[in-house]
Amino acid sequence: MTVHETILEMGRKAVIASRALARLTNEQKSKALRAMADGIHARREGIKSANAIDMEEGKKKGLSGALLDRLLLTDSRIDAMVKGVREVADLHDPVGQILEEKARPNGLHIKKVRVPIGVIAVVYEARPNVTADAASLCIKSGNAIILRGGSESIRSNEAIADALQFGGERHGLPDSALQLVRVTDREAVRELAQLEGIVDLIIPRGGEGLIRAVADVARVPVIKHYKGVCHVFVDESADVEMAVAISENAKCQRPGVCNAMETLLVHSAVAGRFLPAAASVLQRKGVELRGDDAARAIVPSMKRATEEDWFAEYLDLILAVRVVPDVRAAIDHINMYGSHHSDSIVTASVENGEKFVEEVDSAAVYVNASTRFTDGAAFGLGAEMGISTDKLHARGPMGIDELTTYKYVIHGSGQIRE
Amino acid sequence: MTVHETILEMGRKAVIASRALARLTNEQKSKALRAMADGIHARREGIKSANAIDMEEGKKKGLSGALLDRLLLTDSRIDAMVKGVREVADLHDPVGQILEEKARPNGLHIKKVRVPIGVIAVVYEARPNVTADAASLCIKSGNAIILRGGSESIRSNEAIADALQFGGERHGLPDSALQLVRVTDREAVRELAQLEGIVDLIIPRGGEGLIRAVADVARVPVIKHYKGVCHVFVDESADVEMAVAISENAKCQRPGVCNAMETLLVHSAVAGRFLPAAASVLQRKGVELRGDDAARAIVPSMKRATEEDWFAEYLDLILAVRVVPDVRAAIDHINMYGSHHSDSIVTASVENGEKFVEEVDSAAVYVNASTRFTDGAAFGLGAEMGISTDKLHARGPMGIDELTTYKYVIHGSGQIRE
Repeated sequence: MTVHETILEMGRKAVIASRALARLTNEQKSKALRAMADGIHARREGIKSANAIDMEEGKKKGLSGALLDRLLLTDSRIDAMVKGVREVADLHDPVGQILEEKARPNGLHIKKVRVPIGVIAVVYEARPNVTADAASLCIKSGNAIILRGGSESIRSNEAIADALQFGGERHGLPDSALQLVRVTDREAVRELAQLEGIVDLIIPRGGEGLIRAVADVARVPVIKHYKGVCHVFVDESADVEMAVAISENAKCQRPGVCNAMETLLVHSAVAGRFLPAAASVLQRKGVELRGDDAARAIVPSMKRATEEDWFAEYLDLILAVRVVPDVRAAIDHINMYGSHHSDSIVTASVENGEKFVEEVDSAAVYVNASTRFTDGAAFGLGAEMGISTDKLHARGPMGIDELTTYKYVIHGSGQIRE
Repeated sequence: MTVHETILEMGRKAVIASRALARLTNEQKSKALRAMADGIHARREGIKSANAIDMEEGKKKGLSGALLDRLLLTDSRIDAMVKGVREVADLHDPVGQILEEKARPNGLHIKKVRVPIGVIAVVYEARPNVTADAASLCIKSGNAIILRGGSESIRSNEAIADALQFGGERHGLPDSALQLVRVTDREAVRELAQLEGIVDLIIPRGGEGLIRAVADVARVPVIKHYKGVCHVFVDESADVEMAVAISENAKCQRPGVCNAMETLLVHSAVAGRFLPAAASVLQRKGVELRGDDAARAIVPSMKRATEEDWFAEYLDLILAVRVVPDVRAAIDHINMYGSHHSDSIVTASVENGEKFVEEVDSAAVYVNASTRFTDGAAFGLGAEMGISTDKLHARGPMGIDELTTYKYVIHGSGQIRE
């Protein structure tokens, strides 16, 4: 079979599975999910062996240490995967929820009802745990899922997918509810992204390169975020101690993630007090600072920032620093250079806080808190499928509700249009 | 300037306008919209003159009678346009609505707030009234709009857009909140559809050809419906009189629209009673019936339907008729051949009604009512921007709420991530 035929056949099977999934009760889905978690637990040794081969090949291929770390499955990571699937089993069932209900003057009764999206494709790289995370969220929300992981983790993904299927299909999971694409060719991604009328949504998860590769060829809807260039703006009236703590947390607590701060903006009136204190804390944590002239005049040890630094997603212990004249300039900088992900203002001014949250065009806008909170768990959505910086359908963390759509159900007694 | 440069410049102006629009109060938007309505009223004669030139050129080019009818602007159609814009002015303001609000255990206060999408492009053909309808809905929901009508109505669209701008910009409408693309080249559509990061959403309105032309090249999100292949299924237990009335209404009341019925499915157990009655009423109205063998055995005057008829959107007084053994077969037929738009079951069985609404994968699913009700007004949404058969973001009629997205606004008191 060609790649096209293989993917098309998987798509068609997924459509059939999606119809069966849409009709499962919450209890049936939870039972299947718990069996899937048990499946991973039961096949732990096989998963570790498969992962060992991926790791060995990865080392031979010269994958970076960071990539190898993402690829590695330890017992505690497998435990976390099992726990994650069980937690998804216990989430509320979004399907069937009535979002709106009304009676029209002509007697029609209209309900807007939450239903699964149908078939969701997830394209990811490195981390094999996405196989279990994404599959469990899709199934809990009544969707069939087609998974396509990276070639570097193919054996680990196969072992996990097999374990999930083994567990699930013996406990009510429809055939083909979860399928793993075993073709590691990039062509498979293109085929998936162009399966209009079959794949209802494709979600790329990984680096910007992967996400662009999907978005560039997609004919089906994509939900994505390219990158997270997040800002903290320290306003004139900021509590300096709070601003230092938030800056340190947003930059250092986990620098490699999309909601970490990449650029620090500072009101000129507070820069003289704030910047030395912040620089001292950040530099002690090993952060390389790259400032504009005004910032370097206050903290001369900073490197000089270039225009490129304002666009940069370092995902590392590097921070761009800019002094701005007011909240207006901070908002304009963020809307121009940012990635519409997560941005925060530290201020004692209610007015400036309101202005900032109104005008910064980002998925999550904070007043007096770290940008690091933008995720499903911190927002109380449970596990998340990813974070969207798109504006359509889902923005910010995507939980199971965001993996659903709705239909209108209208009951009448013979009404016709006049 | 090249087409690319022209569209890019319009896009950039629209982004700036969208920021100003997002900050307008409901009162300001309503005032601008009423001034826009007045603008059309005041410039009625100029609009009619422009339209007369479009009509003359259309006749010379040999446009069909149906197309010329869509193009024509009479006084009563201009009145309807003015009234439409005033009605949109009076709609509720979706912007700023708090969709969800919660306090997290760490003291963070999270609000999910409705905000405008930003810049919306609308691509349409023939009907010049879309210029006013689409512009008013986008502005009421705080979005900047870029309009691109067909070449056949370019002068009418220009006159309407100028009148709207003339009225609006003197009463608080930001510059470039509403822009009309005056390039009638198809290239302009492609440029618009590929303006990633500037155009947030593109909505094509018109025939399937136009919609495919947009969807095929789009890099920005598209909301669309290709066609409306709507079904009525007459179940075994249907009240035959009601079923005939619904069938007649769904087919004949306005056959050229997307929510009109194109295929009639009939349970074999009721076909002998229902089909002769329905055929008599429909044929009297001039409907050409195309049936399968079982239907033709009962009503021999039907033409023979081919496989293609099940996929057909006639938009005309033609109807495909098929006899099916049960509700299961009806659902399968609809999911296979339909366009996921609007489908109805006529039944006295609560069970079959529930099965039908659960399993038919369409935007609007009816029990005992005509499919003709699928629109914004009938659903109580006010005016509509179009109907979506997509599943992401908006499904079914799109009112002003569907022209918005949301952002998360989080207030803290110095919270950092542990």
